[in-house]
Amino acid sequence: MILHLFRSGQAETDRVEAFSDGVLAIVITLLVLEITPPSVADGNAELWRSLARLLPVIGAWVVSFLFVLVFWVSHHYLFASLAKVDRGVLWLNGLFLLFISFTPFPMALQARFPGTVPAAFLLSLAMLLTASSFGLLRWYASIHAGLLRPGIDQHSAWQAMRRSMLAPSLYLIGTLAAFVAPWVSLVIQVIVPLLFIVPHRIDNELGREP
Amino acid sequence: MILHLFRSGQAETDRVEAFSDGVLAIVITLLVLEITPPSVADGNAELWRSLARLLPVIGAWVVSFLFVLVFWVSHHYLFASLAKVDRGVLWLNGLFLLFISFTPFPMALQARFPGTVPAAFLLSLAMLLTASSFGLLRWYASIHAGLLRPGIDQHSAWQAMRRSMLAPSLYLIGTLAAFVAPWVSLVIQVIVPLLFIVPHRIDNELGREP
Amino acid sequence: MILHLFRSGQAETDRVEAFSDGVLAIVITLLVLEITPPSVADGNAELWRSLARLLPVIGAWVVSFLFVLVFWVSHHYLFASLAKVDRGVLWLNGLFLLFISFTPFPMALQARFPGTVPAAFLLSLAMLLTASSFGLLRWYASIHAGLLRPGIDQHSAWQAMRRSMLAPSLYLIGTLAAFVAPWVSLVIQVIVPLLFIVPHRIDNELGREP
Amino acid sequence: MILHLFRSGQAETDRVEAFSDGVLAIVITLLVLEITPPSVADGNAELWRSLARLLPVIGAWVVSFLFVLVFWVSHHYLFASLAKVDRGVLWLNGLFLLFISFTPFPMALQARFPGTVPAAFLLSLAMLLTASSFGLLRWYASIHAGLLRPGIDQHSAWQAMRRSMLAPSLYLIGTLAAFVAPWVSLVIQVIVPLLFIVPHRIDNELGREP
Repeated sequence: MILHLFRSGQAETDRVEAFSDGVLAIVITLLVLEITPPSVADGNAELWRSLARLLPVIGAWVVSFLFVLVFWVSHHYLFASLAKVDRGVLWLNGLFLLFISFTPFPMALQARFPGTVPAAFLLSLAMLLTASSFGLLRWYASIHAGLLRPGIDQHSAWQAMRRSMLAPSLYLIGTLAAFVAPWVSLVIQVIVPLLFIVPHRIDNELGREP
Repeated sequence: MILHLFRSGQAETDRVEAFSDGVLAIVITLLVLEITPPSVADGNAELWRSLARLLPVIGAWVVSFLFVLVFWVSHHYLFASLAKVDRGVLWLNGLFLLFISFTPFPMALQARFPGTVPAAFLLSLAMLLTASSFGLLRWYASIHAGLLRPGIDQHSAWQAMRRSMLAPSLYLIGTLAAFVAPWVSLVIQVIVPLLFIVPHRIDNELGREP
Repeated sequence: MILHLFRSGQAETDRVEAFSDGVLAIVITLLVLEITPPSVADGNAELWRSLARLLPVIGAWVVSFLFVLVFWVSHHYLFASLAKVDRGVLWLNGLFLLFISFTPFPMALQARFPGTVPAAFLLSLAMLLTASSFGLLRWYASIHAGLLRPGIDQHSAWQAMRRSMLAPSLYLIGTLAAFVAPWVSLVIQVIVPLLFIVPHRIDNELGREP
Repeated sequence: MILHLFRSGQAETDRVEAFSDGVLAIVITLLVLEITPPSVADGNAELWRSLARLLPVIGAWVVSFLFVLVFWVSHHYLFASLAKVDRGVLWLNGLFLLFISFTPFPMALQARFPGTVPAAFLLSLAMLLTASSFGLLRWYASIHAGLLRPGIDQHSAWQAMRRSMLAPSLYLIGTLAAFVAPWVSLVIQVIVPLLFIVPHRIDNELGREP
């Protein structure tokens, strides 16, 4: 009986969470592989200079790391609020994982060609697709398919939904701005994760333990 | 007693699932490492052109990602239908993981030599071996060794088994077609995952929560 | 109360298993990254030839994959037989993970310099250290520190212990043989995993569900 | 009811542990990728010599591996002592994961430029930031936010806190010493993990199962 409870709802949710956690943990950790040691002949002075040239790469790595981390936290709270998952959740979650696992490539591009239009565009686009697919997943699971755990009211689901529209909107601006002023994309890439880390903004997010 | 229940069946199944999820999560995430930033001198126009040349690689990545994702979902449902695992399941599951973890190599080949006979052949062959070993695992676990959870009838086990023959059959055609018309292999590689994502086809698959 | 049961023994064991599974899953999946697409100019004939030259690498990959898989299965059964873990288990398990996670390097060496003395020596040595540290972990956990679950008798613990001496002994021969006849090392590397996969050899291994 | 217990505290803690374990398992396993086979023409003698030149890299790998392993063990005990997690824990844990997942880069630098000031400095700095952020996480969770499980007294929390100051202090010395005598940094990098592995030092650490 207890076993059955676990199996027919909780266990389902748990395994999707575990797989997603695996993918997110790998994405977030692989990012550092894009930072490679410089190939300099010799001498500390030369080595310091080449390390200084790595600062944009390290910046791009921190931004991408925070980006994935914020989505892991949101994903964590979303799934904690679900009573069960269905096939729609599985595939929309897969779409979200597809987009977020693309992150290392535009990050590497941003690191190698910092400030260029194509790099700013592609990283913003990847973030836009990730954030949009997560919004779609949230909408499907918590509103359309009604998979929320009993005790979570529709009102807070809609509230979380509205908040989930913020990131895609900003990333859409960042994606378009890349063509006019790449630094605007950059600022948005830096700011969005910070918006979600500042506690009071999302303090009463859907799925928070009551 | 509850502990005992967990240990002697569920926990077994759970750890095999966890290890397999780990391998599948890593395979699916490593794929993106095959997409590397171009080495161009400078200029946005040149960078855009070299990014456009990456489109076949990105296509190969999406196809491989969906391929692994579909097998993760199938694996998830198969293991959810098992009451326990035995050594046969461990080793056949290992064979399945061996083949699916090979995916990044033929994908990289397909990305570097798109449309060539060897690339189309090797990716199709890898997919054929993965799909066949999964079919073998399903046959062994759900039919031969009788490890299904009570309440799942033999009829739906056979039904799932028959459906599991579809992918290997198509990949076999794709593998052979590579020598005559590589684009046929490509079309099959793209279509098979989509067949499984379209919901009504597998809506009543074995292991679905009743 | 149930919570307490989980926490004070099971949960401990589970988290060590989960971390080890993570490391083993990553090691086993990273191995394929050592197989890289050839850099050939063009032409299917040339591509086929260069793929044929990859056969030793693919062989080394299969052997290393089976090597890690066999240790995952043994690790799985060992931990399933433990009632709890202590710090000694944590560190000896860490030593085992250190050695097994070294595998990709000697495998890459074996792949690049097949049949040479240094490659045969280093891969055998890595396997010897992995197998020895696993034997040490088994001895510590199941015999020295007495962490076995109640109901598993000392006799079968010793039986499993004796069987655990087989692999290190063979790998020691392989390590020494590398200097005289590298192909002997190779044969041992291929044979040992197969010895463990053949079912009747380990059918009544310690930790098997009764 | 049991489900509820699991969900509202344990499950929370468990998922943060699982994600962190994933990241730590990946970091610890990726490290070996920095050890690459030499590119030598031919001949066993030449191959042995180039393998001997890899000894500093292998040394750097062992040190980094032990470094991550020690933090995994500490993380394991810290989280085992927590009754639940809040957003502060999530983000401070994220900061800790950010710093520890940086390890492969300074390790690669240390491997390529052994004994230089920049390499000794950056690896020590990365270790300092990791150890400090872990200390901060411990302080926040076990003292500031009072998330300890009932039955763990404040006294042992403070004792563990004091012990957690040891590593950052030593790494601070190592970071500064890099500019005067890089070998001092190296010695500290080697010694700190060993301090934590020697059992009697931390035998009664916070979170140990009573």
